Amino acid sequence: MTTIPKSHPRYESLRIRDLITKAAKQGLVHDTGLIAHGRGEAYDYLLGEQTSSFSLEAEKTAAAALLIDKNPVLSINGNVAALSSKEMVRLGQSIPAKLEINLFHPSKKRKQLISQRLQNQGAKKVYGLKEDACIPGLDQDRAICDTEGIFTSDVVLVPLEDGDRCQALTAIGKRVIVIDLNPLSRSAQTASITIVDNVIRAIPSITKFVNELKSVKKETLNNIVKSWDNKKYLHDILVFISKRLNSIEP
Amino acid sequence: MTTIPKSHPRYESLRIRDLITKAAKQGLVHDTGLIAHGRGEAYDYLLGEQTSSFSLEAEKTAAAALLIDKNPVLSINGNVAALSSKEMVRLGQSIPAKLEINLFHPSKKRKQLISQRLQNQGAKKVYGLKEDACIPGLDQDRAICDTEGIFTSDVVLVPLEDGDRCQALTAIGKRVIVIDLNPLSRSAQTASITIVDNVIRAIPSITKFVNELKSVKKETLNNIVKSWDNKKYLHDILVFISKRLNSIEP
Repeated sequence: MTTIPKSHPRYESLRIRDLITKAAKQGLVHDTGLIAHGRGEAYDYLLGEQTSSFSLEAEKTAAAALLIDKNPVLSINGNVAALSSKEMVRLGQSIPAKLEINLFHPSKKRKQLISQRLQNQGAKKVYGLKEDACIPGLDQDRAICDTEGIFTSDVVLVPLEDGDRCQALTAIGKRVIVIDLNPLSRSAQTASITIVDNVIRAIPSITKFVNELKSVKKETLNNIVKSWDNKKYLHDILVFISKRLNSIEP
Repeated sequence: MTTIPKSHPRYESLRIRDLITKAAKQGLVHDTGLIAHGRGEAYDYLLGEQTSSFSLEAEKTAAAALLIDKNPVLSINGNVAALSSKEMVRLGQSIPAKLEINLFHPSKKRKQLISQRLQNQGAKKVYGLKEDACIPGLDQDRAICDTEGIFTSDVVLVPLEDGDRCQALTAIGKRVIVIDLNPLSRSAQTASITIVDNVIRAIPSITKFVNELKSVKKETLNNIVKSWDNKKYLHDILVFISKRLNSIEP
């Protein structure tokens, strides 16, 4: 990475790729997390590696939902910790919301490494290590969470989540906000609010909206969330990508 | 992987993912190879995980080119070795063509592991370990190849190649056949013949066409290759994906 100059046309993508491979070497990211990152790279490329105006609206709506609800929790996995630890801690502070570690491939050691990284970035308390509750409808390993965290939350932001867990959380009445670059994924399709954007851009953007909306009346926030049509949003994103592909002349 | 039944809707994709993560653990695949695999998964998903009729034509044209030219070489990297060692050996035997190992992140140890795997699948001779020639226009590490292999070849099949190397090979007059699931990649854009398909499907398909076209007159093979319009093909693929996305109703 050190040999790649800032002027390289793929600099930003290569910089992020470097973050995730380093985190994999340090034990924070699972092998399949690297594959998942690659999928993200591909979808982001199709989006033009920019936040679309549709996704800005989704991020504003997510901010409103996180401010309305009483017990918001931000779920963190290896990839999110690798790419956006500082930004997740800042988002948690600005709402305020709890941070809980949840891994697709559970491991106490990885949880401890991630917890340490979040604390290095200023997190006072990190949930997910107590493991004293279970989300119904999932196999044991994936179901584990903290009673004081996700289990009793009313809204969960789950960046880079898998479809099964997103569905299980929705099924027990949580409002689920998903950040996923693939608009066709089961997570994207089953979430209450989907954000089709790169976490690198999405999390600071949500934080910015949280800070803007903090002083706004609760009724206005409610209206923002109530008027959100997730199906229409996903359709708009597909049409957006489709038009981009159609306009490219090889 | 053992817990995933064949009936799982994502079985095939998970089976392939398992092959590549195992090969990474064995030292055949680089970390960034896992990320590249993820990009492939994403683009394949957009293609419907099927070989389009356009790509079947590309595979037929590639087979004709490999039969016409005098010194065909099949380039092999870690991901190809992980996913399609047996199929590459078979394709090499049916043309016949040489096999040469070329890695984006060069390593003698990985080359030896890959060579062993190819020999286990029946390869009599594997090129790429002699490293006695250089492709002009590339930095030292990436330029290294074998005089008897790629350096004196007239056509090279490079599945999952990077853009720089593809351009450098084209610049010194090689006919370059690329297999790449991303129709927008620099490899896809600069190759003589691009095949936008999964190597898992593409390599057996090329082998099938090689066997069919073996007995065909050289003039007919020449006509197949001459009439290939790579720019039109890439445009057709983009329109194909675009239409698929547009027709999906979330």
